[in-house]
Amino acid sequence: MAQINVGIIGFGTVGAGTVELLLKNAETIAARVGAPIVIRKIADLDVETDRGMTIDPGLLTTDAMDVINDPAIDVVVELVGGLDKAREFMLMAMEKGKHVVTANKALLAEYGRDIYGSARRLGVHLGFEASVGGGIPILGALAGGLAANRIQTMVGILNGTSNYILTRMTREGLAYERAVEEAVRLGFAEDPPTLDVNGTDAAHKLAILLSVASGVPMDFRSLYREGIEGLSPDDIQFAGDFGYQIKLLAIARLGNGWIEARVHPAMIPKDHILANVNEAYNAIYLEGDFVGPNLFYGLGAGRRPTGSAVVSDIMEVARKILQGVGGWGHWLGQDEPSSHEIVVRPIDQLHSIYYFRFSALDRPGVLSKISGILGDNEISVSSVIQKGRKTRGAVPVVMITHEALERNVFRAISLIDKLDIVTDDTVIIRVEEGFPNGRE
Amino acid sequence: MAQINVGIIGFGTVGAGTVELLLKNAETIAARVGAPIVIRKIADLDVETDRGMTIDPGLLTTDAMDVINDPAIDVVVELVGGLDKAREFMLMAMEKGKHVVTANKALLAEYGRDIYGSARRLGVHLGFEASVGGGIPILGALAGGLAANRIQTMVGILNGTSNYILTRMTREGLAYERAVEEAVRLGFAEDPPTLDVNGTDAAHKLAILLSVASGVPMDFRSLYREGIEGLSPDDIQFAGDFGYQIKLLAIARLGNGWIEARVHPAMIPKDHILANVNEAYNAIYLEGDFVGPNLFYGLGAGRRPTGSAVVSDIMEVARKILQGVGGWGHWLGQDEPSSHEIVVRPIDQLHSIYYFRFSALDRPGVLSKISGILGDNEISVSSVIQKGRKTRGAVPVVMITHEALERNVFRAISLIDKLDIVTDDTVIIRVEEGFPNGRE
Repeated sequence: MAQINVGIIGFGTVGAGTVELLLKNAETIAARVGAPIVIRKIADLDVETDRGMTIDPGLLTTDAMDVINDPAIDVVVELVGGLDKAREFMLMAMEKGKHVVTANKALLAEYGRDIYGSARRLGVHLGFEASVGGGIPILGALAGGLAANRIQTMVGILNGTSNYILTRMTREGLAYERAVEEAVRLGFAEDPPTLDVNGTDAAHKLAILLSVASGVPMDFRSLYREGIEGLSPDDIQFAGDFGYQIKLLAIARLGNGWIEARVHPAMIPKDHILANVNEAYNAIYLEGDFVGPNLFYGLGAGRRPTGSAVVSDIMEVARKILQGVGGWGHWLGQDEPSSHEIVVRPIDQLHSIYYFRFSALDRPGVLSKISGILGDNEISVSSVIQKGRKTRGAVPVVMITHEALERNVFRAISLIDKLDIVTDDTVIIRVEEGFPNGRE
Repeated sequence: MAQINVGIIGFGTVGAGTVELLLKNAETIAARVGAPIVIRKIADLDVETDRGMTIDPGLLTTDAMDVINDPAIDVVVELVGGLDKAREFMLMAMEKGKHVVTANKALLAEYGRDIYGSARRLGVHLGFEASVGGGIPILGALAGGLAANRIQTMVGILNGTSNYILTRMTREGLAYERAVEEAVRLGFAEDPPTLDVNGTDAAHKLAILLSVASGVPMDFRSLYREGIEGLSPDDIQFAGDFGYQIKLLAIARLGNGWIEARVHPAMIPKDHILANVNEAYNAIYLEGDFVGPNLFYGLGAGRRPTGSAVVSDIMEVARKILQGVGGWGHWLGQDEPSSHEIVVRPIDQLHSIYYFRFSALDRPGVLSKISGILGDNEISVSSVIQKGRKTRGAVPVVMITHEALERNVFRAISLIDKLDIVTDDTVIIRVEEGFPNGRE
């Protein structure tokens, strides 16, 4: 009976989950694939640490080239993370005709064009479900069960660490720094969790989602991003007063030849299903032209959920090998990836609703001065809250606008922040009312 | 350039959505598949009604055999619904070597073993994503991105009509009959909506989900089912008092060689993500041994969402034809479907938490008599609400139990219902606390 041989490079958290799953569910996996999937080699610089399972020591090697050069290995699983080494391993494995499965979102978000292109050129399969949303099978859905649709909108909670921090800030009123401390202490965040909280990790994942949804490799550096570091519990509370919840969202709208794509904290209506995605959970909400709204929800990280996606990808590649299907996978469509281009709209052309929190002196005429400048810049206000409580001698004046142009907003706020009566930089948070179909 | 020819049997709601999508997104579909998908024939007894799109009249026929006998047709799309005719068409098409795509849940739930077996024997592909959850790509996920997992739990809101009715009863306090009237008036329900409200439709879909998750064709007649017809706004309100929401759930637990599977109204904690699935939306919550909890959410019916699933299936089959992949699809694994058996546990062996609403006379000793019988049957009570308000001369006494055995529950309640002090049949609703991972 045929068997599929895999070699794994990187035996850290995800590597250990992958190996554990391949061993534990070996029988089910073989039945579903039609042949056993056998681990032939595992490469890691550290072959000593106990990963909590029994591994034949003969499988372990400290040299990734032992995996890449093994002619019996059909599928190389790249789980080292990082950019340069991982890229090198992956391209070398492909050059040797090996299929590749990876969880490396940073690599695909930065060098996707190169990697997708190489897989295509060399006729090898490339699976990367694990790179977005941990175990959530979203990429397979975009390329498979939703493939007939034009995806028009995607809104994701794609970073579990920042979602955990925001959940603590919202539920317990914790300050940002305290919530981060707690997340680090409980293992939901690295110390410091820079790429998680500054929006980079979510932007990596959004770039990959967009690549699969549009068929055009997307470089994450072209996506606008802001993190959650500036958020204060005050803003979370004011958001609640207006019926909103604050989430770090990855938002994309796809048009004909253009996309709008951005990662930033945003207020969403409390009754939207995305507002109920809390703790370390991830979710991807999308709207397709025929399917309408869809939501995918699950654990976006961790040894076992990410292992689930890696092994499911290995199984898919194994089936294709057994069926004799050549050519690279269909995740980005059948065309040459570079044959289309999509324009990413600059953020200053965004039309959005905005939340402003001004720190203003408690004097007559303040509101009129601020709203005068907003009006001059074609920004009209839909709600105002001015509460008596004082913050450092100033009172917060909070507004929600009607839809306005981002360029106008930043021009107006820079003028307002120069006023004598304004004591601190104005807080600006975008409000997302634009995907109403997911509201109850 | 190669092209894939499809013939459609059934030009009703879903048929029209399928044709509309194939025409409207033809270019995107061709790019993603690698070849155009061409409609060669559409059969329906009614070829006169305007479906809101321009169709070459030469494509239309009133004879399904024109589709089945057309040697140029690669894929037959069965959208007539019902059992006997649909089955006949499907099997004839397969006998002629045609691949089949269908949305027919009743047929697969009743004759799945036969149909999956025929597809396998004849080496044709069979796509049926549209049979469960409308446009939600759940079957592809079970067979694809989640394939490495043993699915341990599945809990679905699989019938949009009953979910719409329950949403109206919950939000507006409407009586069941009034909510049904409204659903019919607004087009969310047929008149009468028998198979939707009595749990049959949800049981059909659960049987299909179980077939794909377990690899063993499941006959829906072996699944326990109850509908929502008996529910009163009182129970919905009491549920709320205890922190629960009532949903019509399709619940399955999968073990080693056994499953537990049932459709009935159930109380779930208000903060569970499934409790936030309202209106006509569907959702499938599941837990896999590695992926942990996952939720899939979307529109479970309708011309366009169901068309999305049908066309995505056609695309998947088209890709396989172009890749030269023979054999029947992998949705039920590679083994002979009949080579395994799974025992469905009888409902009286269920261990669950229960909600009881007794209608009892307002007399001393009532509570002690009722709880005496419960105690004798090894049912222990965790909460009681006894409110003063009178219903037809009786007071409602409401209880939530600890986990108890269903057989004991029905024995105890039949004894209680014979008491003089009890004026009406006791309402029994199962409480589901057993999939806690989806709670926030």
